[in-house]
Amino acid sequence: MNEYSVYTDLALEAREIYAQENGQDHPGIIVKEDKYEHSQVTRVQLTTEEAARNLNKKIGNYITIESKEIRHNSKLIEKEISQIIAQEIKNLIKVNENATILIVGLGNWNSTPDSLGPKVIKHIFVTRHLQDYVPLEFKHKLRPTCAIAPGVLGITGMETGEIIKGIVERIKPELVLAIDALAARNLERLGTTIQIADTGIHPGSGLGSKRIGLTKETLGIPVIALGVPTVVHAGTIAYDTVEELLDNLTEVNTNQAFNDLQISSIIEKILAPYQDNLMVTPKEIDRLIDDMSIIIANGINSALHPKLDLEEVMKYFY
Amino acid sequence: MNEYSVYTDLALEAREIYAQENGQDHPGIIVKEDKYEHSQVTRVQLTTEEAARNLNKKIGNYITIESKEIRHNSKLIEKEISQIIAQEIKNLIKVNENATILIVGLGNWNSTPDSLGPKVIKHIFVTRHLQDYVPLEFKHKLRPTCAIAPGVLGITGMETGEIIKGIVERIKPELVLAIDALAARNLERLGTTIQIADTGIHPGSGLGSKRIGLTKETLGIPVIALGVPTVVHAGTIAYDTVEELLDNLTEVNTNQAFNDLQISSIIEKILAPYQDNLMVTPKEIDRLIDDMSIIIANGINSALHPKLDLEEVMKYFY
Amino acid sequence: MNEYSVYTDLALEAREIYAQENGQDHPGIIVKEDKYEHSQVTRVQLTTEEAARNLNKKIGNYITIESKEIRHNSKLIEKEISQIIAQEIKNLIKVNENATILIVGLGNWNSTPDSLGPKVIKHIFVTRHLQDYVPLEFKHKLRPTCAIAPGVLGITGMETGEIIKGIVERIKPELVLAIDALAARNLERLGTTIQIADTGIHPGSGLGSKRIGLTKETLGIPVIALGVPTVVHAGTIAYDTVEELLDNLTEVNTNQAFNDLQISSIIEKILAPYQDNLMVTPKEIDRLIDDMSIIIANGINSALHPKLDLEEVMKYFY
Amino acid sequence: MNEYSVYTDLALEAREIYAQENGQDHPGIIVKEDKYEHSQVTRVQLTTEEAARNLNKKIGNYITIESKEIRHNSKLIEKEISQIIAQEIKNLIKVNENATILIVGLGNWNSTPDSLGPKVIKHIFVTRHLQDYVPLEFKHKLRPTCAIAPGVLGITGMETGEIIKGIVERIKPELVLAIDALAARNLERLGTTIQIADTGIHPGSGLGSKRIGLTKETLGIPVIALGVPTVVHAGTIAYDTVEELLDNLTEVNTNQAFNDLQISSIIEKILAPYQDNLMVTPKEIDRLIDDMSIIIANGINSALHPKLDLEEVMKYFY
Repeated sequence: MNEYSVYTDLALEAREIYAQENGQDHPGIIVKEDKYEHSQVTRVQLTTEEAARNLNKKIGNYITIESKEIRHNSKLIEKEISQIIAQEIKNLIKVNENATILIVGLGNWNSTPDSLGPKVIKHIFVTRHLQDYVPLEFKHKLRPTCAIAPGVLGITGMETGEIIKGIVERIKPELVLAIDALAARNLERLGTTIQIADTGIHPGSGLGSKRIGLTKETLGIPVIALGVPTVVHAGTIAYDTVEELLDNLTEVNTNQAFNDLQISSIIEKILAPYQDNLMVTPKEIDRLIDDMSIIIANGINSALHPKLDLEEVMKYFY
Repeated sequence: MNEYSVYTDLALEAREIYAQENGQDHPGIIVKEDKYEHSQVTRVQLTTEEAARNLNKKIGNYITIESKEIRHNSKLIEKEISQIIAQEIKNLIKVNENATILIVGLGNWNSTPDSLGPKVIKHIFVTRHLQDYVPLEFKHKLRPTCAIAPGVLGITGMETGEIIKGIVERIKPELVLAIDALAARNLERLGTTIQIADTGIHPGSGLGSKRIGLTKETLGIPVIALGVPTVVHAGTIAYDTVEELLDNLTEVNTNQAFNDLQISSIIEKILAPYQDNLMVTPKEIDRLIDDMSIIIANGINSALHPKLDLEEVMKYFY
Repeated sequence: MNEYSVYTDLALEAREIYAQENGQDHPGIIVKEDKYEHSQVTRVQLTTEEAARNLNKKIGNYITIESKEIRHNSKLIEKEISQIIAQEIKNLIKVNENATILIVGLGNWNSTPDSLGPKVIKHIFVTRHLQDYVPLEFKHKLRPTCAIAPGVLGITGMETGEIIKGIVERIKPELVLAIDALAARNLERLGTTIQIADTGIHPGSGLGSKRIGLTKETLGIPVIALGVPTVVHAGTIAYDTVEELLDNLTEVNTNQAFNDLQISSIIEKILAPYQDNLMVTPKEIDRLIDDMSIIIANGINSALHPKLDLEEVMKYFY
Repeated sequence: MNEYSVYTDLALEAREIYAQENGQDHPGIIVKEDKYEHSQVTRVQLTTEEAARNLNKKIGNYITIESKEIRHNSKLIEKEISQIIAQEIKNLIKVNENATILIVGLGNWNSTPDSLGPKVIKHIFVTRHLQDYVPLEFKHKLRPTCAIAPGVLGITGMETGEIIKGIVERIKPELVLAIDALAARNLERLGTTIQIADTGIHPGSGLGSKRIGLTKETLGIPVIALGVPTVVHAGTIAYDTVEELLDNLTEVNTNQAFNDLQISSIIEKILAPYQDNLMVTPKEIDRLIDDMSIIIANGINSALHPKLDLEEVMKYFY
């Protein structure tokens, strides 16, 4: 296994890579699958420290929603995905139904592939500031939600983890739901896969170069992370090309002529002067992200306000 | 004096209104003026609680930079204004030259007249995250700066004051510099006047409806506020019309036929159904704000990094 | 009647003003009204040149959809309005169902109140470029649509009318549907009224200062205009204040003491230095326009592609 | 030579590839180089049809400005580049100094790497609409310029070439200056290289998938094209990896074991399901494009209005 072969934020892919290399699933993981009309849901549970270490992820639950059809841009499919997102988030939320939830949109709004988080925030229904004005009969129906897209280190000069920790300590939500753009291993996953995890956001994950995570350990409250792969690292393309080529070199046993170090050195030469900072992304990424941000926001809004009859309540706010 | 006649965020206008109504300056204020080639600077110091109360402002220093020529869009004039801003900010900053400063862009980026703060933040040079990478010889030259445009209550569900207090307690800057769009009394001031004050941002000031201020009392550190009027309240237009009309009714002493209550009631009828929420703004407001945000950012960058030879230091960052 | 009293882009308001001043509807207009659950539709037809001249509009049909409840932000109400828009547009379109239609979003995306047109364009379903790829069985279902938001004179240096004429002559659509932000006479109409007219866009109408219209005369093809009031001219506020005040001056016949010229001169003094270029707009204008642009785009998409089963067709495009 | 090895919009790279493969420059090209303090300029002139065909470019002049230091973000370097751009554009413009010039920003503002053209347009000084208001003494100094960023096929449903041809026929400029984001062969060129050519924009060049070009043949007037590479095609990374790997397979003559067809098939397999639609771009692309768009706009403004003393003229416009 080479560093370029495991460059993924998806537990599902990490599991696949492990299984490929070892001929079987890691014993410390439990996997369940559900089929829906236009999509499938895979629940990967990492149960042991060893499994977590081997897959380079944290102990916890990773729900992956996959739908290649999502690129068809169909309202029916979008609705199905939104409903699954809502259901899965509801399953993960263990706090009281009146507990305040802070939704955080990570990423850089100036960079299309990294703009998923801020774009979702635009469509989130925030209600925390309305609590004082809600008629008594709605009080128990309207969960207080608040939202922020704080920007990235290069824009603010502050670690996102620091900003959110400061806000959490002041606002005192009981749960954080963080949305982020992810890097996948496999091109087919771009814009077609959604991962929801109860493990939070860890340093180095996602597209930004986070040095501080958003986790229960750092924030003191549970953190649900929702992400969509929008890029593949360029090193992955190079690595796959090497693998494919070596697989085709059948006559001589050249495969053994290359060790991982040599391959890494070849790839590094190709990717100079940018190295890790090169993203591979489809031309249509702007449309994929626009569509996905609405699907996700609908799912979140529905998960966080399940009792709310919006039509009814809206009369009181305007 | 009527509520519509004092609707201004500018201490300079509050002073003028007081002087007009009382035939003289308030005894508790000290005023100094400086003339520059294309602009003039008025320093109003409110020295007593009574003065502050009568002018509906806080005790402290209010520096007003005025330049009608600024609308000419001349680089020469813009440079002069940036330099004055830099100098006045430097005069107000009492913290150490290596102290971290947080720049806050208040306002709503979706609403042109309220977008000044977020637009200034885009041009602010942030350096706090670069501190670890700076070569030793620049360490003493590079003041740590960080910046955020948190959005408004309707977008986040959180009071801006709460968000900033949380961030301040975590990041521990020694000073906050807050930029905001203001309401003026006088149409001529839109986009031509800049107010810098050492009193912070107070509840209800600016275009957003702030319920918590950004002040030394709330944040525990000094707050410098920099604002530019971008709107006049619609009530002001109505009130001025009433005044002008009554001034023209010379034959009969009709003026006395109207008391303030009657005038307020007429204006309220005119402005229904929006009342206080109606802004008057020039069509060219987008251009005024774009220009002004660059002028202000240049002034702030120059004030906060006076020792920095940007050319020289940049070599190390890229 | 004074120039400030007729500053409206709405035929409905022009009719009201005329009726108020003359005690009856103009004989050259025909009015029909329909009530819906959350809205009402008024069809004003100007049938004579004299009516058109007296109302300062063109001969033709003006459909006005009004719904104060639209500000409640309810999906039900929004759906009703979208459906009415779709129906009314369909009634006005006299071209073949396979004829190409060009949708034009007028206005300045940098200025919130003037950004309605460009925002609608973002949500328009364009299909003209897909014609070559459509399977034969859909060919007759998919009307070719194309769309552009050309920007305003100050951004392009070109009259919008010139740009669109050039595009029309090259692309050869058979109908133009133009969306624009309007000025109303009455504050209550901001964001609550939609006007659809078969008379096109005329010089000087809307928020931009158009010198060339978009009409059948200039473009050679029918032009349907759809607009929503987003501002009231500041002069209107001033004029209304004068009227209201004079109405309250009962003791003496002061009303006659002021002629229109004097009133105009008072208002001009109030509005200096901006005059006509001052807009009155509610603080929440960004939200009103965002909501309205989706409602309108849904209506247009539904009107132009009535046969289209989007779910079905989408399979072929992605 | 393989299709993935020539995927470049830069004549300079096409020349290098040809020279590498053939051991010498193509006889039909003339090359001149100039050194500046922070940059170098290479003028490649394709003089024969054969040279044009072999390099997959058109007969004409290609000026390439290179500066790796441009990423240092230094004002000095930026000024040097702007001045070189201005000088090179002036050299290519053969029309009268009072002739109207249309600047066209190609590309998709929703996709960061493709947003260069629209971003440059934001900073272009347009004057065509001011001609009627210019005092006589400036009339000869102020060249009429106009500008548009029309959007891409997927947004408008119209070929950009069609839109621009329509506008050109109506507005009748005497020259078009088109700005576009380009694809390079070499990662080092991203954001560090500017190409100016007198050959116009050809179908299939740039990031958008143009089917109609912007050339003297299609528009009837000269077209100067200015572009900056912002992406490398993912196939290029894969191809380079293959080449590098095969170069390292020294023991056996495996190189001959692979022909171009096999390599293409391997790469296609890697890039499925996106193929040509995958872009490689650095994470910092948003900053690179923001900086570059100002540098370019300054160069263009200076080239098109060389006589203009902006300070002086501005007095008359505001």
